[in-house]
Amino acid sequence: MKRARTELTGTVGFVPTMGFLHEGHLALVRRAKRKNDVAVVSIFVNPTQFGPGEDLAEYPRHTGRDLALLKKEGVDIVFMPTPNGMYPDGYSTWVETSGITEILEGKKRPGHFRGVTTIVNKLFNIVLPHKAYFGQKDGQQLRVIQKMVTDLNMHIKIISVPTVRSKRGLAMSSRNMHLSDEEREAALVLYKALSIAKDLYMRGEYDATRIKAKMTGLIKREPLAKIDYISIADSDSLQELTCINRPALVSMAIKIGSTRLLDNRIIG
Amino acid sequence: MKRARTELTGTVGFVPTMGFLHEGHLALVRRAKRKNDVAVVSIFVNPTQFGPGEDLAEYPRHTGRDLALLKKEGVDIVFMPTPNGMYPDGYSTWVETSGITEILEGKKRPGHFRGVTTIVNKLFNIVLPHKAYFGQKDGQQLRVIQKMVTDLNMHIKIISVPTVRSKRGLAMSSRNMHLSDEEREAALVLYKALSIAKDLYMRGEYDATRIKAKMTGLIKREPLAKIDYISIADSDSLQELTCINRPALVSMAIKIGSTRLLDNRIIG
Repeated sequence: MKRARTELTGTVGFVPTMGFLHEGHLALVRRAKRKNDVAVVSIFVNPTQFGPGEDLAEYPRHTGRDLALLKKEGVDIVFMPTPNGMYPDGYSTWVETSGITEILEGKKRPGHFRGVTTIVNKLFNIVLPHKAYFGQKDGQQLRVIQKMVTDLNMHIKIISVPTVRSKRGLAMSSRNMHLSDEEREAALVLYKALSIAKDLYMRGEYDATRIKAKMTGLIKREPLAKIDYISIADSDSLQELTCINRPALVSMAIKIGSTRLLDNRIIG
Repeated sequence: MKRARTELTGTVGFVPTMGFLHEGHLALVRRAKRKNDVAVVSIFVNPTQFGPGEDLAEYPRHTGRDLALLKKEGVDIVFMPTPNGMYPDGYSTWVETSGITEILEGKKRPGHFRGVTTIVNKLFNIVLPHKAYFGQKDGQQLRVIQKMVTDLNMHIKIISVPTVRSKRGLAMSSRNMHLSDEEREAALVLYKALSIAKDLYMRGEYDATRIKAKMTGLIKREPLAKIDYISIADSDSLQELTCINRPALVSMAIKIGSTRLLDNRIIG
């Protein structure tokens, strides 16, 4: 990849993925392709962002299908490193952003964001993109990566791309494949809860606690859903808000059966 | 600096310094100048590599003189960021290499190498050099930076340059300016101890413990010197050796009065 990179001219747009591509990824890929001379996609299920007991081994993979999809989109380079290539014996360097990584997903998954910032830093150093594309669905990840890039003075523009949803509102995610038909139906409650938050805010409700209570009530009426967290936070710092007096990220992690799903939207 | 960088063509050689330049720095600068189309030098006394109670406030500075010296060497760009520019309010990202940073200097100065790897990573991202030059005098730092660059897949070649010494063997260091005439004389004991190690090895002594004992004996006869550590370690991993059966870094930290000096040489 490093050798191929030296031969590229013009602007490089980069989409790092863990594979098992869906329409959400393809939206990133199309943007990267349209806005740059060269589009590079990586497929790498990064072991260091999975905690013990998390779903690394079960993380879905389907490389043949992924490559066919990327070919169809006209992607110029697909970079598929191996775990041992990225983390050889004796590997010992970590990129870690504190603060914003210690709340929400970071609190539930200690070490997760250290794995994310480290692998993204490494991929950026290898691919040397001008722009890198991330989905708004992983809202905290997007902000963590932006913070890492800013703090470390990297010459890379981070572009966020809106979440792609099914017609009925389910956010695209590789983990949706674990859902049964019944669970898939139940999973619509995430989008419904976000919609309630938006509606309440539009009708003049600025009290975050009251909005969260309404969201909680809705989700609790869905028997297959179990709330991990619901957050209404400053859209940049992700510090929790009591009063929505500035742009806020409403985000949540909800277990549907044994599958943990994330979703979010910005209000205000 | 980032803007200036985009206008540079050809290869860029980079020498990061903390200023108060001496002949050791100038050897790095001359090498960078000779081997590249463009030579960039940074001057930045990096606060994050000093521990509490260390000599950040007293670290010597003499920017006017530094700039005159660099101008004379024909350096193309001198980059002098401010502490607040490098670490603005809310700064929270750290680059940390474990293992090799936890011994020798890292053991004596917890957090020191985290500050070093973080600032060097940031400077590399800003300056985007093809090659970066470091002195062999800070032997562990050189290895830590090489490890960081390798682990994070940075496209930068790390070049080590031999230690520059006074005629009588004192290694050039900004901290030498704190030495009185008497202490400067006493400080020659570092080089003498390294020379003894080399001589013993050349005469067939491969037992690291015995060599260290001879070095210790010599240094202890110097009343102004106080041993912080003496190490004979694998030249790559810096793991201590009992038997010198491969290239070894003989290194030491010695206090002369209140000034802590480092020196090293490779044997084997």
